[in-house]
Amino acid sequence: MVAYPCNMNKQIILKQRPAGLPDASTWSLREQPIPTAAEGQVIIKTHYVSLDPAMRGWIRDQKSYIPPVEIDAVMRAGTIGTVIESRHPKFAVGDVLSGWGGVQQYIATDGEGHFKVDTNLVPMTKYLGALGMPGMTAYFGILDVGKIKEGETVLISGAAGAVGSVAGQIAKIKGCTVIGIAGGPEKCAYVVDQLGFDGCIDYKNTSVSKGIKEYCPKGIDVYFDNVGGEILDAALAKLRMYGRVVLCGAISQYNNTEPIQGPTNYLSLLVNRGVMQGLIVFDYAKRYREAGLEMGQWMMEGKLKSEETIKEGIENFLPTFKKLFNGQKKGKLLLDILDKS
Amino acid sequence: MVAYPCNMNKQIILKQRPAGLPDASTWSLREQPIPTAAEGQVIIKTHYVSLDPAMRGWIRDQKSYIPPVEIDAVMRAGTIGTVIESRHPKFAVGDVLSGWGGVQQYIATDGEGHFKVDTNLVPMTKYLGALGMPGMTAYFGILDVGKIKEGETVLISGAAGAVGSVAGQIAKIKGCTVIGIAGGPEKCAYVVDQLGFDGCIDYKNTSVSKGIKEYCPKGIDVYFDNVGGEILDAALAKLRMYGRVVLCGAISQYNNTEPIQGPTNYLSLLVNRGVMQGLIVFDYAKRYREAGLEMGQWMMEGKLKSEETIKEGIENFLPTFKKLFNGQKKGKLLLDILDKS
Repeated sequence: MVAYPCNMNKQIILKQRPAGLPDASTWSLREQPIPTAAEGQVIIKTHYVSLDPAMRGWIRDQKSYIPPVEIDAVMRAGTIGTVIESRHPKFAVGDVLSGWGGVQQYIATDGEGHFKVDTNLVPMTKYLGALGMPGMTAYFGILDVGKIKEGETVLISGAAGAVGSVAGQIAKIKGCTVIGIAGGPEKCAYVVDQLGFDGCIDYKNTSVSKGIKEYCPKGIDVYFDNVGGEILDAALAKLRMYGRVVLCGAISQYNNTEPIQGPTNYLSLLVNRGVMQGLIVFDYAKRYREAGLEMGQWMMEGKLKSEETIKEGIENFLPTFKKLFNGQKKGKLLLDILDKS
Repeated sequence: MVAYPCNMNKQIILKQRPAGLPDASTWSLREQPIPTAAEGQVIIKTHYVSLDPAMRGWIRDQKSYIPPVEIDAVMRAGTIGTVIESRHPKFAVGDVLSGWGGVQQYIATDGEGHFKVDTNLVPMTKYLGALGMPGMTAYFGILDVGKIKEGETVLISGAAGAVGSVAGQIAKIKGCTVIGIAGGPEKCAYVVDQLGFDGCIDYKNTSVSKGIKEYCPKGIDVYFDNVGGEILDAALAKLRMYGRVVLCGAISQYNNTEPIQGPTNYLSLLVNRGVMQGLIVFDYAKRYREAGLEMGQWMMEGKLKSEETIKEGIENFLPTFKKLFNGQKKGKLLLDILDKS
């Protein structure tokens, strides 16, 4: 292990766009002097960075919902940390701010894209998970796009993940029958026993189509898709009349070097008058507060549970990132990059 | 040519479900005695049958929005004809009825699924075209599912066809920029010069992707899809934010013996917060009258044009049916099966 001088700001920099799964040539560690605050700025000492499947899209050189991360720029990421210097009228030293700090230990910012959170009520990590971007995605995806109604059958892929776990619990709160899809018996047990789903299909060990037949005998009213590929096709095949497919992600396709696999069964949307609709959580920014209050309430009532998988050390960014795609994590994946020197 | 006795009811019967494109083994001609009316029934002498791509789906042995046509049953089809005998309180001899008579020269019915039309205002054939199922599909597809707004860019595949031609003209009436996709220079000229579209991409002779770039430089707000396959993918690639894809059909895929080609670019729906939604016109039955009145008005004002390709003779059902898929027709395809003996 290289020893870094204690007064440096370690950053993860995008070096090269990967063809498939990112590897050691994708990012590198850079050291910069720790910034100081200009007038109107704060310095945030980052504690946690959020690792999200969407990051794979952000390093792809193509038009998308936000511009790609540039080569030699700090890797984009959601962060949470503490203000250690302030020349900003609204923020004081000691405030905890969540925002888009990127994978770096210290951030100089005018505060745009950062907001103060209350860590007396819930731990800091929740603001990157169930009360952060994944939670908001789940909330607006299942309610606004999925338009779930009491008594409906809801199927959720990536059910043990940061988004799927919350989406499914919200559907349970709203009176739906909720079936998850997750990889392996341990995750499936977590989804049913801890999160309270009505059932969970282990896609690594059983046929998803058979599982859907068993758990959703009347078919699926809402399918919340985090994975794409064959699982999306299996769900489309069992869509009920006026069914809705919420397109939240397609993690099975993100590291493809071949063309993406389109849903062969998309004509189920025609036959069943179905809707397949995409969602980008940023569109709901004005309603984050409303959603946060409601979800916070559910958390305090014990109705909404969430878990984090936390790894340590900014130098472990790559192996931690890979856990997004190899299934070696549960709930929200975070990296603790706090400068402990 | 076989000479049939003049007092028989000729019918087209489903003999065998085809693997790909239907052929001589798919249907056969059957003769039955001409029926007489039981109490509460009418006998309709059929003049025209409607030939629609959806028919290919109706002879497939799988769960769909209506049960498949059974083997040895009369082939399902929309029809129009004249009442020649009535023991029904609501219908009189001479009334012209449109409905689901099937491919047969005489129909005995209690009137269910048949309704009286006024052939003083518009010719009989329009009730199977622009004022029939294809027109209704276009109307509700482009307005209710597509939710077109003035100033938007609308792309329509199958633009010279029975549905696409009407959908595009409605979008023009509503103030959209409308681009068609059709096969061959003659059809494209028809779409632009006769129907008033702003442009038309000849998919047989040019690249659809390039054509979309040229004609829709800002992208597509609404894509009305009648064809599926590569054209659907090209359209998805150029979908604008909050774009809508109306799934009306997938004629490029109907005779596939291989699995259907799913839309590789479906994640454009995610990135662009798009919606892809299917439509089955029967769901709008309660609003056919409202739509018919509005479209009839547009027709009389010269804003909505329609054309029919009419072939003759029930024995020509198969070669006429094939014209749905080989592009050898314009507008609505009809078969005149009137018993002229």
